[in-house]
Amino acid sequence: MNEPTRSRRIGRPPRAENQRERILHEAAMLFARSGFDASSLNDLAEGAGISKAGIYHYFKTKQDVYDAIIIQTLQGLYDHVGAAVAAVTEPPEQLLAFMTAHAEFFERNYWAFRCMLISFSGMTAPDSRHEAVILRERYERMLRDILAVGIEQGAFRANDPAGTGRAILSLLNWMARWFHPGGPQTAIAVARDYADLLFHGLRA
Amino acid sequence: MNEPTRSRRIGRPPRAENQRERILHEAAMLFARSGFDASSLNDLAEGAGISKAGIYHYFKTKQDVYDAIIIQTLQGLYDHVGAAVAAVTEPPEQLLAFMTAHAEFFERNYWAFRCMLISFSGMTAPDSRHEAVILRERYERMLRDILAVGIEQGAFRANDPAGTGRAILSLLNWMARWFHPGGPQTAIAVARDYADLLFHGLRA
Repeated sequence: MNEPTRSRRIGRPPRAENQRERILHEAAMLFARSGFDASSLNDLAEGAGISKAGIYHYFKTKQDVYDAIIIQTLQGLYDHVGAAVAAVTEPPEQLLAFMTAHAEFFERNYWAFRCMLISFSGMTAPDSRHEAVILRERYERMLRDILAVGIEQGAFRANDPAGTGRAILSLLNWMARWFHPGGPQTAIAVARDYADLLFHGLRA
Repeated sequence: MNEPTRSRRIGRPPRAENQRERILHEAAMLFARSGFDASSLNDLAEGAGISKAGIYHYFKTKQDVYDAIIIQTLQGLYDHVGAAVAAVTEPPEQLLAFMTAHAEFFERNYWAFRCMLISFSGMTAPDSRHEAVILRERYERMLRDILAVGIEQGAFRANDPAGTGRAILSLLNWMARWFHPGGPQTAIAVARDYADLLFHGLRA
């Protein structure tokens, strides 16, 4: 397969992959709720229902688990949002697709986002840090490109795509702070409201 | 005085107040940089250049110091932004004043905001928690009222003031994550750009 990060998400993963996923999912909940420092690999083993040796099979340290959550989330986000954006052609549709797909992925990966955006402990492995920066830049570039093409084609008012992109990501990222899955609105509905406000503005 | 929280900020505070302020300022930097759990009252005493007994004169525990930072910041924010809003009359001017005054107060109290919005440890004293909730609600109500009056007067398009208020606070609050004082733009300039985008929208 040419796209390992995407193929991993399609269909039924092999059993070993399920176990690694389960560890990462449990760790994201644990770190987000108790904080990285206050969480131990013993807590993680207990929560995931896996022996500590089972965890060591996949990860050498607690930090490695944390780093894997962040890298996997950023990769998955890019793949999911990129596919939604590629499915439409006009910049306004693409921007709406970007915002709603981001919100959808966030809601599905709620604990990993809480872990990444709220309970941030920082990454220690230089390789992971470097990879995370590259993934984040690639993602932000996708958004800036939609804005830049929209300005060029006359669909959007002249604006600074970097500043506008930052505003859009602020709206979406702050959701990790207040949004709870299962509440009155879905994350996608919130993103639609934000897109409406952003597209048409507040002035009557 | 009828308004102790405001009068405390006017003119030159007495010397003792300076010492309490110095402890809070130093603690905000310490908690924001090292995290609440990893910071000790010894670190704080050393950083503030005050004996540990001097700190105990004002605060019983590390948690009390944290709670005082949050309460003081929320009070100061309300006072500062409220004064800016009260100085103008039309809802669009008031909204711009709200956003720029918020950004100004954030830049001046950068470490307290980082402490409050990023390195959040949660409050343990029920009284402080209750007070913080009331202060936060009062602040959000000021914003929603500006929006509601603007809609009523026809200055703003019909929208849900609660959702729009949340969008505005998302833009402003996420600044604690990426903005650094002394960078290429002031926080006020960022808030003005956000207000322009919000008022006029992205569509050409």
